Amino acid sequence: MTPRVVILGCGFGGLWAAQGLRGAPVEVTVIDRTNHHLFAPLLYQVATAGLSAPSIAGPIRHILARQRNATVLFGEAQAVDLAQRTVRLENGKEIGYDHLIVATGASHSYFGHDDWAPYAPGLKTLEDALEIRRRVLLAFEHAERETDTVRRAAWLTLVVVGGGPTGVELAGQFAEIARHTLRDEFRRIDPSSARVILVEGADRVLPAYPPELSHKARLQLERLGATVWLGRRVTAVDAEGVTLGNERIACRTAVWAAGVAASPLGRMLGAPLERAGRVIVEPDLTLPGHPEVSVIGDLASVPSHRPPVPAIAPAAKQMGRYAAKNVIRRISGKPSLSFRYRDYGQMATIGRRAAVAVIGAVRLSGFPAWAVWLLAHIYFLINFRNRVVVMIDWAWAYWTYERHARIVIRGIKQDKNA
Amino acid sequence: MTPRVVILGCGFGGLWAAQGLRGAPVEVTVIDRTNHHLFAPLLYQVATAGLSAPSIAGPIRHILARQRNATVLFGEAQAVDLAQRTVRLENGKEIGYDHLIVATGASHSYFGHDDWAPYAPGLKTLEDALEIRRRVLLAFEHAERETDTVRRAAWLTLVVVGGGPTGVELAGQFAEIARHTLRDEFRRIDPSSARVILVEGADRVLPAYPPELSHKARLQLERLGATVWLGRRVTAVDAEGVTLGNERIACRTAVWAAGVAASPLGRMLGAPLERAGRVIVEPDLTLPGHPEVSVIGDLASVPSHRPPVPAIAPAAKQMGRYAAKNVIRRISGKPSLSFRYRDYGQMATIGRRAAVAVIGAVRLSGFPAWAVWLLAHIYFLINFRNRVVVMIDWAWAYWTYERHARIVIRGIKQDKNA
Repeated sequence: MTPRVVILGCGFGGLWAAQGLRGAPVEVTVIDRTNHHLFAPLLYQVATAGLSAPSIAGPIRHILARQRNATVLFGEAQAVDLAQRTVRLENGKEIGYDHLIVATGASHSYFGHDDWAPYAPGLKTLEDALEIRRRVLLAFEHAERETDTVRRAAWLTLVVVGGGPTGVELAGQFAEIARHTLRDEFRRIDPSSARVILVEGADRVLPAYPPELSHKARLQLERLGATVWLGRRVTAVDAEGVTLGNERIACRTAVWAAGVAASPLGRMLGAPLERAGRVIVEPDLTLPGHPEVSVIGDLASVPSHRPPVPAIAPAAKQMGRYAAKNVIRRISGKPSLSFRYRDYGQMATIGRRAAVAVIGAVRLSGFPAWAVWLLAHIYFLINFRNRVVVMIDWAWAYWTYERHARIVIRGIKQDKNA
Repeated sequence: MTPRVVILGCGFGGLWAAQGLRGAPVEVTVIDRTNHHLFAPLLYQVATAGLSAPSIAGPIRHILARQRNATVLFGEAQAVDLAQRTVRLENGKEIGYDHLIVATGASHSYFGHDDWAPYAPGLKTLEDALEIRRRVLLAFEHAERETDTVRRAAWLTLVVVGGGPTGVELAGQFAEIARHTLRDEFRRIDPSSARVILVEGADRVLPAYPPELSHKARLQLERLGATVWLGRRVTAVDAEGVTLGNERIACRTAVWAAGVAASPLGRMLGAPLERAGRVIVEPDLTLPGHPEVSVIGDLASVPSHRPPVPAIAPAAKQMGRYAAKNVIRRISGKPSLSFRYRDYGQMATIGRRAAVAVIGAVRLSGFPAWAVWLLAHIYFLINFRNRVVVMIDWAWAYWTYERHARIVIRGIKQDKNA
């Protein structure tokens, strides 16, 4: 009977694993709790109204339609029974496997303060992105309506917590929206007077990058009009503002881009976890004592690998391919291979003509980095149509500063911030 | 002191009224409960995953940015005080006016059965469209997961209530999705086995059109794979299905495209209303006894006008222009003009190469009607960028049958239908 391979999660890790099993003598079942594969690196553009949601998401069924050995199931895995080799879905249904690939990723962490979440949403899903878009755009609408100058100032203050790539991207985009996109559109407020504050606990933004690029990223952020606060930790977040020790920022809009919390599914695998909840795997990405179970992507930690594998899309894709290859090797009785990460570099974008990139020994910033980023992201967008539309949206936005996706779905009555 | 003109609602009527006052010696305040002007005639395409929401909506602020005498306020008018000449917003704030233009439109009516709404949502806002898209796409996902054949059949049955233009458009699109878009993407179900049933109480679809076009529209619907039930009235709707007298259709997905209920604001104007709640206005579109108040668009009924003014976008635009013109005339002491509707025709689209159109004495159906519809709608889309992207989306969809916006934002856990 054909071996059953179950893949949990269809992000970059899961999708690349599934496609790596194309044509293999296996039955692949891909289980995801949404109906789409998300091009997560551009999620911040949906959150900042530059792109519409469908431009960065493709229906998983459509992507895998022609892979005859793949079945796509819309569902959420809630438990894994390693002994019985079954996965239980949210509807109680059990699905058996011979090989399991767990790629359910990671989310942000409020460091034990989940009560901050309603006041400072994070950015992991399309739903998150649309919620952040809504809050940022409505903040200016509320400011225009507000007559009290103090309350108006709070509406015109946007705080981004966390100076990693996501935080830097969001702060840069928010500054552009305030300085350029909304120019001339309000009669009572000056949108460019809005304050965009990026708060980072470390002594530099993009701590994972070389110090001189962190420095350049900071300068580029400030040139765009954002304020960067370093070495400050958030101690409280509520509907009225953000507290940093004995400092208080009155703001009605905050976004959370700090911390990492691996998918809760990791805990159910019984293996040791590292601090952020990532599953510590063998060099071949399998679960200790369970060669039939691979853990990949942001959910996996590979301590044996030097230098450490970064939690970025290219690494997840490579792990996906590896896991698929190892499943095929095991079926044909060959020993599994240990994972080697091939480093093609890293980049973070900040705004127009503003980005930083590390490619091997080459370090870029400003326009060259931005150009490389642009080409890479258009190239990697999952399907052709999206690529064309995204290019048009970007070209249009570049020349006009307009953002076509400035649409708030819910009306003022449903706006809890109001 | 410059006369204050307040416009409630920024649909076709309100927006055209605002733009008609461009350069006039007045202070215009446009109040809408969303931040966008919606190109409503294409809403069904968002509901059926053909277009993304931002492609058919433009931020009101951006559209009016260069009109210096216009201020845009995000808010919802809750009451009008005709004696004090003030409008009260949902936040209790009062806004005074010298001239008021009420253009808050109409919604669908459940004929006193509002309890049916959760089981058969209507299509008036972007939020409605995304909810219908979600339900239709998830219906096929649930069917793929369902092992019980009876329950599976209920997931694969889509009922559209109401055979007007919206109902015909939705039924045609649903049939195309089942027959073409989803082909080859499921492993356990055959999406083309889905039943799409259009229920209409009258003895023909598109009752507002000439009988022979109703007949042709029905044939085109059936060719696309939809089933048309005429002369049947819905007597109950619940989570499990739709009841028509002593007939019962087991279905998990129903959409409401019947009935008209004018905006509740109409009732507050103290003027006589017609059956659907539309305000009966004078020949010059003003409120009886209140020449300073105009009511336009779907909220207005102009009994003096023969033939009756249809409740379609072109009529709303013409009323908006008229109301603006009459405000300017009154300010300069001229008598107001009575409204004359200029009939450029009507069209309803059904699917690819399938539509009907009446243009003066000319009656088109099939490909010619569809071609006219296509050109007209691309031409009228509010801004250039949208036009380009919509054309690409349509060209792409036409050749591939793929629909790029097949994205469900909320996951299975939040899916109440499950």
